[in-house]
Amino acid sequence: MTRRGLLLILSSPSGAGKSTLARKLMTWDPSIRFSVSATTRQPRPGEEDGREYYFRSRDAFETMVKTGDMLEHAEVFGNFYGSPKAPVEAAMLDGRDTLFDIDWQGGQQIRNSSLGRDVVSIFILPPSIAELEQRLRSRAQDSDEVIAGRMAKSRDEISHWAEYDYVIVNRDIDTSFAELTTILQAERLRRDRQPQLTDFVRSLNREFETR
Amino acid sequence: MTRRGLLLILSSPSGAGKSTLARKLMTWDPSIRFSVSATTRQPRPGEEDGREYYFRSRDAFETMVKTGDMLEHAEVFGNFYGSPKAPVEAAMLDGRDTLFDIDWQGGQQIRNSSLGRDVVSIFILPPSIAELEQRLRSRAQDSDEVIAGRMAKSRDEISHWAEYDYVIVNRDIDTSFAELTTILQAERLRRDRQPQLTDFVRSLNREFETR
Repeated sequence: MTRRGLLLILSSPSGAGKSTLARKLMTWDPSIRFSVSATTRQPRPGEEDGREYYFRSRDAFETMVKTGDMLEHAEVFGNFYGSPKAPVEAAMLDGRDTLFDIDWQGGQQIRNSSLGRDVVSIFILPPSIAELEQRLRSRAQDSDEVIAGRMAKSRDEISHWAEYDYVIVNRDIDTSFAELTTILQAERLRRDRQPQLTDFVRSLNREFETR
Repeated sequence: MTRRGLLLILSSPSGAGKSTLARKLMTWDPSIRFSVSATTRQPRPGEEDGREYYFRSRDAFETMVKTGDMLEHAEVFGNFYGSPKAPVEAAMLDGRDTLFDIDWQGGQQIRNSSLGRDVVSIFILPPSIAELEQRLRSRAQDSDEVIAGRMAKSRDEISHWAEYDYVIVNRDIDTSFAELTTILQAERLRRDRQPQLTDFVRSLNREFETR
């Protein structure tokens, strides 16, 4: 019997380093499955179905929601986004962890889903708002208005930090990454994530009997 | 506001490597406080009050139990053993973790105590019973009868493995020690063990307001 894979949820305001941490984690352990979201928005140039997103029609998306095939979903700026459930369950049974790069709404829905007890949730905080704004400004030539919108969304996201199991303040990417892998490794050592131990202890008991 | 210290409980059958792991952990982080037990048994040659044990009279021990000053206690082979509560609470408020090297009965009592939510419990399993017995035989010139008694106690101890938060199978002391420090570091990153974050997020919100 293999370990039961867990659901690792990473949330943070954009600009706090979440995507960098997620990318590093996938390289550190390639067995981790990244949960690709489904969306009803149009693909942008260079985006590929099944890589950045599963691009679905509104009808197809709504059917998945109705049949319980979405772990979580939300409407953002008129488009639907959601996490398909089937690949997560397949990975779990295979002993592989699934990484979710989602916002607090998605995190809340997955925690409250039937897979809630398999969730490990981590919130990444920026060291300061000045730093957060600087990172947002440096990575795109967005207008002040767009930046202001992002900052408002960041503030809303941060207001949900206390709903998460763990919190990492990302002052330094290497330290934060070490903390992230530490959390994941420790969670894998939890008794209830090691179902193979039941058989192992049974074998110890047989050994006691045949001494 | 500092981090709230946690209560790290290590249990295992004797011979599984628990004491070695505990000793290494105290060297790795000297801020960790080892919980010295109180006992009514007589000191053996070389033992010092307050180092191996707090040696107490039966009356003094019973008074501590009655006044709620023992986190846990039990009678073993006619003597009382217990963990005094006051030094644990002092360490917690000081942001220092306390390490308990105790059996399943003590673990159970501390988990059920008022400090239960601060407990992180780890059970150390031996790789095999043959290995456990060999370690017991190699470290003392005990009679077969004494060894048999220890093995019976070990079996009883192992039967409580599933009451612990984490399980480490000690196949190799270096790997097990790395797992132990990983668990402790991750537990320190839990949101509810970082009360200083409340003030930190407040400062982020003030920064949003003065942008």
